[in-house]
Amino acid sequence: MTDTNAELDDRARQLDREHVFHSWSAQAGLAPLVIASGRGSRVWDHAGNTYLDFSSQLVNTNIGHQHPSVISAITEQAQILTTVAPAAANLTRGEAARRIVRRAPSRHNKVFFTNGGADANENAIRMARLHTGRDTVLSTYRSYHGNTGAAVVATGDWRRVPNEYARGHVHFFGPYLYRSEFWATTPEQESERALRHLERVIQSEGASSIAAILLETIPGTAGVLVPPPGYLAGVRALADRYGIVLILDEVMAGFGRTGRWFAFDGYDVEPDLITFAKGVNSGYVPAGGVIISDEIAADFDETVFPGGLTYSGHPLAMAAIVGTLDAMDAEGIVENAATIGRDHLAPGLAALAEKHSIIGEVRGEGVFWALELVADRDSREPVSGAVVGRLKKELLARGLLPFTADNRIHVVPPAIVTADEVAEALTTYDEVFSLDLS
Amino acid sequence: MTDTNAELDDRARQLDREHVFHSWSAQAGLAPLVIASGRGSRVWDHAGNTYLDFSSQLVNTNIGHQHPSVISAITEQAQILTTVAPAAANLTRGEAARRIVRRAPSRHNKVFFTNGGADANENAIRMARLHTGRDTVLSTYRSYHGNTGAAVVATGDWRRVPNEYARGHVHFFGPYLYRSEFWATTPEQESERALRHLERVIQSEGASSIAAILLETIPGTAGVLVPPPGYLAGVRALADRYGIVLILDEVMAGFGRTGRWFAFDGYDVEPDLITFAKGVNSGYVPAGGVIISDEIAADFDETVFPGGLTYSGHPLAMAAIVGTLDAMDAEGIVENAATIGRDHLAPGLAALAEKHSIIGEVRGEGVFWALELVADRDSREPVSGAVVGRLKKELLARGLLPFTADNRIHVVPPAIVTADEVAEALTTYDEVFSLDLS
Ligand SMILES: Cc1ncc(COP(=O)(O)O)c(C=O)c1O
Ligand SMILES: Cc1ncc(COP(=O)(O)O)c(C=O)c1O
Repeated sequence: MTDTNAELDDRARQLDREHVFHSWSAQAGLAPLVIASGRGSRVWDHAGNTYLDFSSQLVNTNIGHQHPSVISAITEQAQILTTVAPAAANLTRGEAARRIVRRAPSRHNKVFFTNGGADANENAIRMARLHTGRDTVLSTYRSYHGNTGAAVVATGDWRRVPNEYARGHVHFFGPYLYRSEFWATTPEQESERALRHLERVIQSEGASSIAAILLETIPGTAGVLVPPPGYLAGVRALADRYGIVLILDEVMAGFGRTGRWFAFDGYDVEPDLITFAKGVNSGYVPAGGVIISDEIAADFDETVFPGGLTYSGHPLAMAAIVGTLDAMDAEGIVENAATIGRDHLAPGLAALAEKHSIIGEVRGEGVFWALELVADRDSREPVSGAVVGRLKKELLARGLLPFTADNRIHVVPPAIVTADEVAEALTTYDEVFSLDLS
Repeated sequence: MTDTNAELDDRARQLDREHVFHSWSAQAGLAPLVIASGRGSRVWDHAGNTYLDFSSQLVNTNIGHQHPSVISAITEQAQILTTVAPAAANLTRGEAARRIVRRAPSRHNKVFFTNGGADANENAIRMARLHTGRDTVLSTYRSYHGNTGAAVVATGDWRRVPNEYARGHVHFFGPYLYRSEFWATTPEQESERALRHLERVIQSEGASSIAAILLETIPGTAGVLVPPPGYLAGVRALADRYGIVLILDEVMAGFGRTGRWFAFDGYDVEPDLITFAKGVNSGYVPAGGVIISDEIAADFDETVFPGGLTYSGHPLAMAAIVGTLDAMDAEGIVENAATIGRDHLAPGLAALAEKHSIIGEVRGEGVFWALELVADRDSREPVSGAVVGRLKKELLARGLLPFTADNRIHVVPPAIVTADEVAEALTTYDEVFSLDLS
């Protein structure tokens, strides 16, 4: 069997290299890991090489791999109805929407479903523009909002390549004390100055031109940049003062990753529009969407909303949402993420940082953490890409599937991760940080 | 049981109206049809009201509803692995890609997977822009290419609302003899003049600024506008002459709808990039993608392709592709679409047009047809929206789920439709056209 299974891995690799064009990559040098199956916090290839998944793939499998009741929800729906046009009413879709709005602030009662995070942001931006009659969207440089034409220009990181293909997007700096853009030295100062900076951008662009402020509640791919005290409440106040729609992008941070249903539940802030994807059904079937405030939804009672897509509210995706949210409730998965974060990851990662000077800062909460790796603690100079590549290789060799971005390792296991699995991962990180990496 | 089932329909409607925000609609007046399940060419609600689905939902269920072997493919994959990051290699994804490229022209060997049609076009446009170093994308006024920021501005129909949010999109007129923009009276003349018009637009915009011509092989939502002889070959020649990438959008027309794998297989044309979605897996799980020519793929061997999305190559979507394409092969479903079109729909719809003067023109092939409804055959004045609404209501009342767009009924059953079902639908259309519709 081992031979046959190894052959399946070879075939997976071969077909991949021949026929599959990969995202965000030069295609020639790729040597992708084969993933054939998984369960809980682990994945494996055909030959049986197993990895502890501390990436949650793209930070989406909050409920872990192959959760039995979500699988059942999908397969049961598959027996009944796999696909239906968005214009129809479908009970599973209604049940999914009800479960989502139940977790949102009370003035949010409608959901527009999409296939993922990018199109969620696309439609939220459109709603904000139509609601305000204004054009400009403000978002931060350190952000990722998706890859479609408008979503990608809202994006602030290097993936904002085709910025010239849309207009109306202005970027500003968000708070990030470790590498402050505002010469701040305390969280309070960072918060206050970041708000002052944002207000100056609003005034300088002209408030009457600004439709929306689009923010990841906790910027994720940019480095799990937990906002300092008062920042989000301050953004909400600025949005109110200037009549701007506040969109919080909860695509990565939402549905349990922080140890709360929404990341913003931990802050004194209520958005007008909430975009989501990933955690809502752990990506078991592609889905995303916008949770809409009553005020904005009312704009489209008599006026046509100009947006849509073939698979909006897809029944299998909806069944996966129902299954996921019910299982998260029944099994206390969000609470588990909070506990694991507080009692295991927070102290465990802090201990790693004590021991290894390559770790410049540890940030996060729940199962949403970043280790900022530096060549020098005083200058805070990021480690090179080569060092991150080496770390990744060594972690994989020890059976840990990591998430790396720039000079960081993001520690982002599923929300169902156990204390034992965290201990195992911490040991592996420790071992690898103990190597000579130069 | 009947009572309980009727209650489920009520609940589906109620949850829908409370919590589900619908595409392309004003929300207040909606009274959506409940669809609970289906099989083959039919769908039904909980109470058991059954409809013959001559819409294929949004023209996507080419394989019909609930095809058993596709359901099995999905549920089997669900037991193994529901989700995986795009960066991994996965055998099911490789198998899906292989089956797709096998049906494409031989110089197309790589697939970039997306969640649907819009993001397929987004990424194709991006590839064309990077390949040519040019910016402008030409597409027709009568087209629909999707709803994201760049895809929506490529769109030519009324949904092209937020045109101001992107740049570099120029629209031209495609051939449409029934309502010629070129004062043509024969198909040959329409073709020749449409090509002349396109070349003048290219020259006037400046050929050196044009990255791509993006065309639906057969514009679908715009009215199943089958291109006249020589048109597509002429577009290919213009693209070659001016160094422009030709993208054919096969999202609606592809994977069997025309009675061919790709609609372009019926014309003397080979595109550089092919975008697909819908029929590739009948929408059982959201999926789309770009089939890439070797020449364009090679651009990204050493250079990073700047695009991606979380669910690119999603395993359940891939399993549905494998299941769908294998079943279509095994059961001769594409051939069935061709036969049904030639032997049943073509003569049947022609007979309807003979009898009912409201039908101004019948166009199509395979299971891809439009009836152009006119108030007056000479002036060709379109019937009003009220008439189309009335027709739709009467068809539904007789158990036929129609697809309507503007002044047209599109006759777009699944590719598995039987001769008997076509006969049943033709009788229903006939009955309804015989009513006093004024
Ligand atoms: C915060 C955030 N928004 C949006 C997106 C885009 O989601 P998708 O890849 O599903 O389009 C991502 C993806 O990583 C994300 O992290
Ligand atoms: C020709 C064509 N292209 C693109 C699209 C967009 O596909 P999606 O709705 O999956 O984004 C459609 C949808 O109807 C289409 O018909």
